[in-house]
Amino acid sequence: MKRISILGSTGSIGVSTLDIVSRFPERFEIVGLAAGGNIDLLKEQIGRFRPSYVSVSEEAAALSLKGMDCHVLHGIEGAIAVATAPEADMVVSAIVGAAGLVPTVAAIKAGKEIALANKETLVMAGELVIREAREAGVNILPVDSEHSAIFQSIVGHNKDEIKRLILTASGGPFLNYPMEKLKGATPADALNHPNWQMGKKITVDSASLMNKGLEVIEARWLFDIPADRIDVHIHPQSIIHSMVEYIDGSVMAQMGIPDMRIPISYALSYPERLPVSLPSLNLLEIEKLTFMKPDHERFPCLNLAYNALMAGGTMTAVLNAANEIAVDAFLNGRIGFTEIPEIIDKVMSSHKNGAASHVDDILRADLWARGKAKEIIKGGNS
Amino acid sequence: MKRISILGSTGSIGVSTLDIVSRFPERFEIVGLAAGGNIDLLKEQIGRFRPSYVSVSEEAAALSLKGMDCHVLHGIEGAIAVATAPEADMVVSAIVGAAGLVPTVAAIKAGKEIALANKETLVMAGELVIREAREAGVNILPVDSEHSAIFQSIVGHNKDEIKRLILTASGGPFLNYPMEKLKGATPADALNHPNWQMGKKITVDSASLMNKGLEVIEARWLFDIPADRIDVHIHPQSIIHSMVEYIDGSVMAQMGIPDMRIPISYALSYPERLPVSLPSLNLLEIEKLTFMKPDHERFPCLNLAYNALMAGGTMTAVLNAANEIAVDAFLNGRIGFTEIPEIIDKVMSSHKNGAASHVDDILRADLWARGKAKEIIKGGNS
Repeated sequence: MKRISILGSTGSIGVSTLDIVSRFPERFEIVGLAAGGNIDLLKEQIGRFRPSYVSVSEEAAALSLKGMDCHVLHGIEGAIAVATAPEADMVVSAIVGAAGLVPTVAAIKAGKEIALANKETLVMAGELVIREAREAGVNILPVDSEHSAIFQSIVGHNKDEIKRLILTASGGPFLNYPMEKLKGATPADALNHPNWQMGKKITVDSASLMNKGLEVIEARWLFDIPADRIDVHIHPQSIIHSMVEYIDGSVMAQMGIPDMRIPISYALSYPERLPVSLPSLNLLEIEKLTFMKPDHERFPCLNLAYNALMAGGTMTAVLNAANEIAVDAFLNGRIGFTEIPEIIDKVMSSHKNGAASHVDDILRADLWARGKAKEIIKGGNS
Repeated sequence: MKRISILGSTGSIGVSTLDIVSRFPERFEIVGLAAGGNIDLLKEQIGRFRPSYVSVSEEAAALSLKGMDCHVLHGIEGAIAVATAPEADMVVSAIVGAAGLVPTVAAIKAGKEIALANKETLVMAGELVIREAREAGVNILPVDSEHSAIFQSIVGHNKDEIKRLILTASGGPFLNYPMEKLKGATPADALNHPNWQMGKKITVDSASLMNKGLEVIEARWLFDIPADRIDVHIHPQSIIHSMVEYIDGSVMAQMGIPDMRIPISYALSYPERLPVSLPSLNLLEIEKLTFMKPDHERFPCLNLAYNALMAGGTMTAVLNAANEIAVDAFLNGRIGFTEIPEIIDKVMSSHKNGAASHVDDILRADLWARGKAKEIIKGGNS
C-alpha cells in the first residue's frame, strides 16, 4: 500500500491522480490533499478519499471545512503539513506555479518520494532541488508526459551514453496561425489547444512555447544533461511524447494517446506499470507523424528559456515569474499575446543575476521579477 | 576484450560485424570465421583479422586457403568447429538459411553468447533453441533491426507487463505495385528494396512479407509472447524499427537510420553502447512517418507464417524450407512471384505435423519440405 499526499488535488493533474488512485484501491491510499479555492470539489474528494490532512489557500475556506473528519489547515504552512505528513510515502506535487516550490522542497527534505508535475520546482530551483533530493535519497519521478517519456526511454539504458534529449511539442494552437494576427490573438484563441486538456496557465504557455522552454529547463536538471544537448521538435500529433538519442545512433521513444493518466500512473507505480484501462494507441488510425523545427520568430519564449538556463543562477526563476505575471495579464485582457515574450525579455534584461544557493535567494528573485513585470505592464511600455 | 567467431563472415551481416570490430580493436578480437564460397573476400578478412579458425562450405575452397596462418576447415563440421572454438566468448550467427541452425545450436551448447542474425535458428527450432539456451545459461542477443528494437524497448521494463509487440515492415518494393502486375514481377523488381541493402534471399522475403512472417515467429520465441499478441504494421519509412505496448498504454519504440551496424554494435557490446560514428537520425528531414495494416491479399506469406506458428511442431520448419526452395526457383526464373505463397501453402497442407523435440525431427521435416516443394515446382502444378 502506497500512502500519498497530493498538492493541488482539484487541478487537472490532481483530479487525474485521484482517478488512478480510485481504480487501484488495493495499492494506494490518500493521506493528504492540498487545494486552492475549489472547495466544492475538495469536499467531494474528502468524502471519497478520506484524507487525514487537508489544506486550502485561504483561512476562510478552511473554516468552511470545519466538521469534516480530518485536520484542516491553510496557507503555505498547511501545504507544507500535507507535504510532510508522517504517514505519506509519496507526494504528488501538482500545484501550478511558484506556490508549488516551497512545499515540494519540504517534502523532499522529509524524505518523501516525489511525483513531480509542478514545473516551477525545477525551473526556479533545479540545481538546489536535485541536490536536496540526492542528499535525502529521494526519487523524483516526472509526471509531465515529456519527462515521463524521457525517463522511460532511459530506464534500463545507460545515462552516460546519451547523446541528446529530444522533447516534442505539439506547437499549440498558434502553430499555423497567421503571424500578422498573432498580435491580436485572444485568450480564447490561446486556450484552444489541439491535443491536451489542461489548466489555463499551462495552455497559454503551450501556445507561446514557454511551456516547452520550461520543460527544457526541467529536463536539464532531472536528467543532468546540458542545455546544448536538449533539442525541441514540433510534433503536432503529440503521439511521440519525447525521445532520447544514444551514442550508437539508437533513438528510444515513448508514445501513447494524449492522456495524463498514463504518465501519472507510471510515476505512482514505478517500477511497475498499472493496467490502466485506456484505449490502445492505434497508429493505423493516425494518418501520419510529422516533425518540424520550432519557429523562433513566432515563438520567442523558447529561446528566452534557453537563455535563462544558460545564464543560470536566479535567471530561470526570473523568467518563470515574469512569465506568470505576463500570462495572467494576457488572460485578463491587459496585454496582447505577443507582449508576453517582450515583457519577460525586459524583466530578464534588467535582472542582476546571482547565485541560487538557497530557496530564499530564489524567492527574492521571484518577488522582484513579479514586481518588475507588473511595473512594465502598468507603464504600458512593453 | 570480447573474442568473437562469425558464422557467415562474407555476407552482409558478417561484413558489417567486421566493420564494427575493426572500429573498436581494443574491445573485440576475431577467433573464427565461417564463410560460403566468396573466397577472395574471406582471404582479405583472414589477412586483416587473423582468426585462428576458418571454415568454408566446400573442401576444394578449403584447399585454396592452405598456407594461411590458421586452422582451415570445411563443411558443417568446419562451421561447428568455428562456432565452438574454445577461445570464443560470442558467436555471431549470420549464415543465411537453414544451414545456420546446426552450428548455432552447437555454439549454444558450448555456452557461447549468441548474436543472432540467422532467422532460421528460431523459425525452425525456436522452442528447442530457447530451452537449450536457458539450460546453458546463454544470452541470445538479436541482431535483426526489428528484434533489436523490441529488445531495447523491453530492457529496463517488465516483460510480464507487455500487452503486445508491434513489428514494423517497410512493405518492400511491391507495397504499391499494381496487383495485376505482381504475377509478372521479375527478380530484379523484387530485389529493388526501398530502404535496406541486404542479401538476395532476404530481399525477396521482404518483397513477399515472408521476412516479416519469419520475424513474427522469431519474436514469439525470443520474447516469449504468443502469436496473437504480435502485430505487424507497414511503416514504409523504416525509421521506427519496432515497438512494445505495455499494459498502461505506453508504447516504447526504438528508432534509427536504416543501418545494420546499429543493432549489430548493440548486440556485440550489450549492455553497453558503442560510439558508432554514424549520422544521427534527423526526423526534421523526414517528411512523415506513416503506418498501415498489411494487405493480406497482396502478401499471403504473412498469414502462412502466422498459421505455421499457430500449428507449432515442425510446421514452421516446413514453412521455412518450402519458402527457401520457392524463392530460389523465383530467383532462377522458374516460377513467378505470386507462386511463392502458393507453393508454400501446398507444402504446408500436405505436411503431417509432429513434435519438434530434437534437431533431427526438424531437419527431417526440413528435408521433406524441400523435396515436396521441388516436386511441386517440377510438376509445374503450382
